Amino acid sequence: MNSVSKSFLRRGRLPTEMDKQALEYTSSIAVDKEIFEADLKVTEAHVAMLINQKIIPSEAGAKILSALAKIRAQGYNELAKSSFEDIHEAIESKVIEMVGEHQGGWVHTGRSRNDEVATCLRIRLREYLIEISESLINLLQTLLEKARSEKDALAPAFTHTQIAQPTTFGHILLAHFNALARNLTRLLEVYNRVNQSPLGSGALTTTSYNIDRRLTADLLGFNNILDNSIDAVGSRDFILEAMATYTLLATDISRLCEELILFSSDGYRMVELADEYSSTSSIMPQKKNPDTAEVARARCAQIVGMLTAAFTLCKGLPFSYNRDLQELNKLLWHSSRTILDTLKIVEKIVATLKVNRSRMRQLVEQSYSTTTELADTIVRESGIPFRAAHTIVGLAVKKALEKGIEPNKLNLKMINTCSKKVLGRALNISEEAIRNALDPATFISRRRVEGGPALETLSKAFSDKQLWLKEKIALIKKVKTELEKADNKLRKTVAEYTTPTVS
Amino acid sequence: MNSVSKSFLRRGRLPTEMDKQALEYTSSIAVDKEIFEADLKVTEAHVAMLINQKIIPSEAGAKILSALAKIRAQGYNELAKSSFEDIHEAIESKVIEMVGEHQGGWVHTGRSRNDEVATCLRIRLREYLIEISESLINLLQTLLEKARSEKDALAPAFTHTQIAQPTTFGHILLAHFNALARNLTRLLEVYNRVNQSPLGSGALTTTSYNIDRRLTADLLGFNNILDNSIDAVGSRDFILEAMATYTLLATDISRLCEELILFSSDGYRMVELADEYSSTSSIMPQKKNPDTAEVARARCAQIVGMLTAAFTLCKGLPFSYNRDLQELNKLLWHSSRTILDTLKIVEKIVATLKVNRSRMRQLVEQSYSTTTELADTIVRESGIPFRAAHTIVGLAVKKALEKGIEPNKLNLKMINTCSKKVLGRALNISEEAIRNALDPATFISRRRVEGGPALETLSKAFSDKQLWLKEKIALIKKVKTELEKADNKLRKTVAEYTTPTVS
Amino acid sequence: MNSVSKSFLRRGRLPTEMDKQALEYTSSIAVDKEIFEADLKVTEAHVAMLINQKIIPSEAGAKILSALAKIRAQGYNELAKSSFEDIHEAIESKVIEMVGEHQGGWVHTGRSRNDEVATCLRIRLREYLIEISESLINLLQTLLEKARSEKDALAPAFTHTQIAQPTTFGHILLAHFNALARNLTRLLEVYNRVNQSPLGSGALTTTSYNIDRRLTADLLGFNNILDNSIDAVGSRDFILEAMATYTLLATDISRLCEELILFSSDGYRMVELADEYSSTSSIMPQKKNPDTAEVARARCAQIVGMLTAAFTLCKGLPFSYNRDLQELNKLLWHSSRTILDTLKIVEKIVATLKVNRSRMRQLVEQSYSTTTELADTIVRESGIPFRAAHTIVGLAVKKALEKGIEPNKLNLKMINTCSKKVLGRALNISEEAIRNALDPATFISRRRVEGGPALETLSKAFSDKQLWLKEKIALIKKVKTELEKADNKLRKTVAEYTTPTVS
Amino acid sequence: MNSVSKSFLRRGRLPTEMDKQALEYTSSIAVDKEIFEADLKVTEAHVAMLINQKIIPSEAGAKILSALAKIRAQGYNELAKSSFEDIHEAIESKVIEMVGEHQGGWVHTGRSRNDEVATCLRIRLREYLIEISESLINLLQTLLEKARSEKDALAPAFTHTQIAQPTTFGHILLAHFNALARNLTRLLEVYNRVNQSPLGSGALTTTSYNIDRRLTADLLGFNNILDNSIDAVGSRDFILEAMATYTLLATDISRLCEELILFSSDGYRMVELADEYSSTSSIMPQKKNPDTAEVARARCAQIVGMLTAAFTLCKGLPFSYNRDLQELNKLLWHSSRTILDTLKIVEKIVATLKVNRSRMRQLVEQSYSTTTELADTIVRESGIPFRAAHTIVGLAVKKALEKGIEPNKLNLKMINTCSKKVLGRALNISEEAIRNALDPATFISRRRVEGGPALETLSKAFSDKQLWLKEKIALIKKVKTELEKADNKLRKTVAEYTTPTVS
Repeated sequence: MNSVSKSFLRRGRLPTEMDKQALEYTSSIAVDKEIFEADLKVTEAHVAMLINQKIIPSEAGAKILSALAKIRAQGYNELAKSSFEDIHEAIESKVIEMVGEHQGGWVHTGRSRNDEVATCLRIRLREYLIEISESLINLLQTLLEKARSEKDALAPAFTHTQIAQPTTFGHILLAHFNALARNLTRLLEVYNRVNQSPLGSGALTTTSYNIDRRLTADLLGFNNILDNSIDAVGSRDFILEAMATYTLLATDISRLCEELILFSSDGYRMVELADEYSSTSSIMPQKKNPDTAEVARARCAQIVGMLTAAFTLCKGLPFSYNRDLQELNKLLWHSSRTILDTLKIVEKIVATLKVNRSRMRQLVEQSYSTTTELADTIVRESGIPFRAAHTIVGLAVKKALEKGIEPNKLNLKMINTCSKKVLGRALNISEEAIRNALDPATFISRRRVEGGPALETLSKAFSDKQLWLKEKIALIKKVKTELEKADNKLRKTVAEYTTPTVS
Repeated sequence: MNSVSKSFLRRGRLPTEMDKQALEYTSSIAVDKEIFEADLKVTEAHVAMLINQKIIPSEAGAKILSALAKIRAQGYNELAKSSFEDIHEAIESKVIEMVGEHQGGWVHTGRSRNDEVATCLRIRLREYLIEISESLINLLQTLLEKARSEKDALAPAFTHTQIAQPTTFGHILLAHFNALARNLTRLLEVYNRVNQSPLGSGALTTTSYNIDRRLTADLLGFNNILDNSIDAVGSRDFILEAMATYTLLATDISRLCEELILFSSDGYRMVELADEYSSTSSIMPQKKNPDTAEVARARCAQIVGMLTAAFTLCKGLPFSYNRDLQELNKLLWHSSRTILDTLKIVEKIVATLKVNRSRMRQLVEQSYSTTTELADTIVRESGIPFRAAHTIVGLAVKKALEKGIEPNKLNLKMINTCSKKVLGRALNISEEAIRNALDPATFISRRRVEGGPALETLSKAFSDKQLWLKEKIALIKKVKTELEKADNKLRKTVAEYTTPTVS
Repeated sequence: MNSVSKSFLRRGRLPTEMDKQALEYTSSIAVDKEIFEADLKVTEAHVAMLINQKIIPSEAGAKILSALAKIRAQGYNELAKSSFEDIHEAIESKVIEMVGEHQGGWVHTGRSRNDEVATCLRIRLREYLIEISESLINLLQTLLEKARSEKDALAPAFTHTQIAQPTTFGHILLAHFNALARNLTRLLEVYNRVNQSPLGSGALTTTSYNIDRRLTADLLGFNNILDNSIDAVGSRDFILEAMATYTLLATDISRLCEELILFSSDGYRMVELADEYSSTSSIMPQKKNPDTAEVARARCAQIVGMLTAAFTLCKGLPFSYNRDLQELNKLLWHSSRTILDTLKIVEKIVATLKVNRSRMRQLVEQSYSTTTELADTIVRESGIPFRAAHTIVGLAVKKALEKGIEPNKLNLKMINTCSKKVLGRALNISEEAIRNALDPATFISRRRVEGGPALETLSKAFSDKQLWLKEKIALIKKVKTELEKADNKLRKTVAEYTTPTVS
Repeated sequence: MNSVSKSFLRRGRLPTEMDKQALEYTSSIAVDKEIFEADLKVTEAHVAMLINQKIIPSEAGAKILSALAKIRAQGYNELAKSSFEDIHEAIESKVIEMVGEHQGGWVHTGRSRNDEVATCLRIRLREYLIEISESLINLLQTLLEKARSEKDALAPAFTHTQIAQPTTFGHILLAHFNALARNLTRLLEVYNRVNQSPLGSGALTTTSYNIDRRLTADLLGFNNILDNSIDAVGSRDFILEAMATYTLLATDISRLCEELILFSSDGYRMVELADEYSSTSSIMPQKKNPDTAEVARARCAQIVGMLTAAFTLCKGLPFSYNRDLQELNKLLWHSSRTILDTLKIVEKIVATLKVNRSRMRQLVEQSYSTTTELADTIVRESGIPFRAAHTIVGLAVKKALEKGIEPNKLNLKMINTCSKKVLGRALNISEEAIRNALDPATFISRRRVEGGPALETLSKAFSDKQLWLKEKIALIKKVKTELEKADNKLRKTVAEYTTPTVS
């Protein structure tokens, strides 16, 4: 206690060293591993700009750039050995240690940790957004392929967790494709708002140095700069919206997992997870459990909780920077990694999923799932309104259940018994029409409307989706190329300023 | 109990009436007020399409359309008198009651409540999104005007709820403008995903009738159709993302309110809410409390909670429709109204806010908020690195505080005392340079960098923002015009089919 | 705008009337219906105490008490017609309107809305806690009875949503009893902390009048008084913990509903909800959906969300009263009613639930759920360690599945084939021992350990639980009797002071 | 891929090794560090019981116990080197590796990972509950001492973040004591429900071995056993309620931190965090920021989020064990450590807090915070009703503010000007009475009501609280002693069975 701080920052206003436990409690060093590389880049770009604008001596700048290169080479772990408030302080201290304060003391000219960290967060987050998008694309591609190979696999479709109507398993999988695909669009929209530069905003009012914000933004691959400095350092909606989008995505993944667990449960056995993605019991020898899907489902709950934490944390804060915001970063990185890992696992589960066609057919046939078509057929054949047909068929099903008559044994006579009750007369319809209506294959082939499961409709949908995926893949490639270009430019600029040409 | 149901839906499979308490518990009638008008439109468009496709008799169709017009004229309250599961059942029952089952029984041909309700939700939600966007634009416009009129009002800017640096109150308000404005972009992105038609998806596999989904989508003003029927009826991410966007917006509003409460508190008195937006105490005669801002802040917490509820609700559901989803609607409408009301109130608070310039100036002058500039000036004048200058000034402030010296009394001698401690020598800097550096006006005028508070920089930002707002206003106008066009077309089509030309 | 306020409170410091929209936005009148009766009681007790302590003239006190009686008789709706900030202002204004300010102006002496509302909230909440506890007891009683009547109904028990082992349906229902029962204990613990009186704390520092806090606490049935006035008016943890307990309860109810939905789904059909608690489809004539259980499950999600909102709302507030807290009340009442309604519905669902014993037996028999017992039997009979037996049986099940051999066809030969693989030798065990081990009835009857499903064990548990329930019923009766006594005393005291004996 | 698993569990039913990435994704090994010691104890108690009941050979049992001792000695890190699903599998595998399957294979007899993990969680959680309670007691003790030493420090008390009335800083701190203290009671109630033994419940239906659940419960220090095996392995409400209680506690801590941040902000400067718990800025030399309090506040938001995650995770799960539950453990441990660390830091912040008495006095004197007493004095002296007095004083304050008259300059003349407006006449009150009423010291000394800030009242409260704390300290000591006794018994029993007496 009360010992003089070794921190360069604390030498002036707060010369006493921070309480050890308090430093541990508040330090973000462990979490800042995520932005180690980003902070080096940001510092390089900033220093290069300072040299370019003649704000700092070019010699000091060159020395700092060399030091940064060494720090990068030594890696994060070396840096994290000492105890610092954060990576920013650690890097500055290391630079000063390496090249002396006379030169290294220039590194933080015209910036603040407030704009520095906001810039680092955006750089790292955009990387995650790209990686997550790519993993999502993989999952989408796998789902599409699986859907294609199951396009004619008769399957029960559910509402209220009850068998509702027949469809194909390809149609079911495509539903998940569609839901998940919207998240890709969202991720890319978020990317655009994330990829804006706060650098140059200083503590919160910019700086009186003649800095060039466009230059650093350019070297760091940003699309644009944030044009109010208080907002730039104090807002974290870019984090909140990334996490909200993860949560939307997680909700869709969780619903997919819910179906995998339900469909693979003993009552259904429509699908089976590959052994590599299942566990057994320590005591029940027969058990095969869908553990990976369960864990994925649980992780999605954690993502919901992290989003709640993030909103709760931010909601009560006045502008601009408050130290609370540091804690948001943990949630962001944890959330990012969780969704990423989960996407990868779910992709593997889907890719190796075994589909039990005969069981799915059996479930459809044991249910009364084609009776909607029966009612519709009655409407078309006998000309009565739908609501009457719905009542007649409903009554018939009720009787069949009471008498234990199987679904495909519903016949004209039974229908007419009910019709007489409802309409006072028999229907003008053939036994054959009823047979046809009750056939699951007919049910599906008649659903040719856009969005439906009929083979030709579904095939068209597959092509459309494949095309859509290709466009997105190209778009992401473009984004990555732009980032690479900026990085090359930064590397070149740094090289140039590190070894100033002798005059 | 066990009495025969009066519900048309329950006559077949479940002839027993629902338990009264259970019906009350599960009925969505009260909440469906929100989609009464939407359901009428959807039913009109659907019936018109059924006539057009010759799926139902044109005479029955005409009768149904007449009945719908009457139901609209009678209004929602008339309909809500009877107890039904939901508005969809209520409208169909009313139609049948009005024109007889022989004609009215056709109304539900080729659709299901599942696609019907999803369509209604999207129609009502897009209206809310437009209304919320417009209210947000009002708030933005008011903020911009207020910022403009306070562009030269010296004010303290905060980090860590501590006075950090001087700026202008216009710069502070513009920060909120920027943060809030991003939500407008988000709302418009969400709008595009909401405005897709699920109609024609039936229960979950479309239908065997030869319906025309593009026609109904067109009559209802949708941009496109959802092209997988299971996804179309079972997904609610369009609700979740709208609510997530509200929550992002609410977080920004809450932070603004937090500042209004802080800035108007006795320790600051930088601003004062107009009396019309304040309350007093029932017992403390002197009290003037910022109640409206407090309630707004609390409502934002409720919006966070509703989002959490929505994610929690959806997360565990398999596809497709489950009755749980009905409960999501309550959250959506409640959330929509809450954010709308809150935007309107906050706009009024800002519009009538009194700004206390002399107090803000006093706060700036009593703080050491210009010392960043002092350090920067030392760097520039004396050529020492920033970190050393930062330490020197930090020491000087520490001493000044200990001795009770006021901020503007920091002088060359004191600085040099500290410099000798740090560098072992005095600095090469003039007393005048120090005086200048400590002057808040200088502090601000030197911050000309993009995003900074200097007058010319800020004025440029105001122009940019006004332009941006104009573009958004035009965009929303365009969207509304398109919806009106579609509605006119629907009205015309309905009129045409209601009075079929005599052959 | 700017019109002079009709509010008695605003005549002094804030004579301008509140903006109409702001008043609507901030007024709690609609929600205060919940505390209308409580506020009358609190005011009666307070006024009686003021008379008793000779703080106000007894004549004025008598008039006020008469006015309060009239306000009660007229009812809440009459009061809510005018627009006020809240019920407290409304009642005081009404009193003054009725008996003139000269007399009525004494009513608010020595108290503040801050302690008044905190007291009202606690009174209304304790009523809810009692009502919720009683409804929970009803559900528990129904579950116990149902469990008793299904104590010998063979049923599959699940882990990982896979059939794990046989048990009885009574054992399964008792698990829910146990989980739910813990919430009753929690509710009663919360009750004790809720039932403390804040009255007399004034705005936040008590008052200089010689009030008697113990007397008002006594008249209002409180167990004790809160002994720090800032805490008493500024803390709302009693609300948060009530809501947290509701959420614990809701989670258990949601899991029960999840099982009801799963068990009644087509793949299982182990149970069936009564028709009165089910819905059908508007289009699929065969559908019978467990809508009530689905809605109950969704309501539980809303309860989670309200808790989140409540924590988020409170978390950022300094002491003591902030207007934000008013918004907490909405969440509390909404939450209280939701859990109450849900308990009632779920009780009815359970009471009328149809259990399909033959289907449950079929599910058990079609699974390999008794193989744990087979492994255990091998351990006991042949003396090999459990892990080896587990491996042998696991292998046997794997082979049986591959060859399509039914569970009850596992035999000694197959076991020994596997044993040779694992141990290199056959097992010393009889065919009969294997047959017995595979029999579900044996499986159950052997599980006599405390907590297990064997008939005698279960019967003992039923008796224990019934006893426990009786104790809780008696406890709640006692609590209610105490409240009635206090209320009688209040009535008597009020009567006494309303008609002061003529001297 | 497809390589044969080295896991003992997977040799039978699922001989294929788990996919490496899936194993990493689902393994809980890293998190299970928390229950390494608990699992050893549970296994020791279980094995001792198996020996005692003659269920396993005593020799095998002795070997297993020796192996467990070695595993403990080697420590968790050694065990975590290999990849396993969880700590339970790891320990069993290690035992088998050490003593051979012939002996080690007996370890898992008559139990399952399901009851094993539930038991471990409860053991570890009760340790956390004790440690958290002790840290909370430390904080309470520190608060009480600080409150005592500030019992006569005049301070402004706030409502609506506005200065409301004068009080003492001791009174303010005691409010936090009271709020926080209720959480101690809650923690102890939760402890009782946590400390129940699930061991012996097996996978979910107990076991057919003649195990003795009371014996293991006794050896492990449990108060009781859970008497339904499905509930025992499938319920996690004990985790949820611990986390809910943490969140209640965190909310109170967050509000305390909110006040520390507000009170130490430039507008107030009522308190100042010690330098050791503050940070400065990397750029603004004058800054001293309350970073520890900010981080603590943010951590409390994370605790809210973890609770939300926990509820969301559990809500949708059917009974009994699902792998999702494993993920709950992470949330529990993270939550436990977060609240523990935060309590410790906040205790240090409070202990070292500097209180600025002169500034607090200044704030009180610059406000009109004693005007409630002025109104009350008018009531008492002049006999007019409170509402009239409130209006008169309110008007007087309004005028004083308009004319810039300082609070202590309010005088009889001004009051009477207002009185004439309101009542049409002057008041019968002396100038001296007004002077007295406006004096903050008088304000406080007159508030002698229970709960109020007057010195004697407050001193009484301090004594009561100290007594209460002592009782709680004694209670916790008792609980710890019981656990130690049980542990000694376990140690003795294990020793006995490890070296079986030669016959």
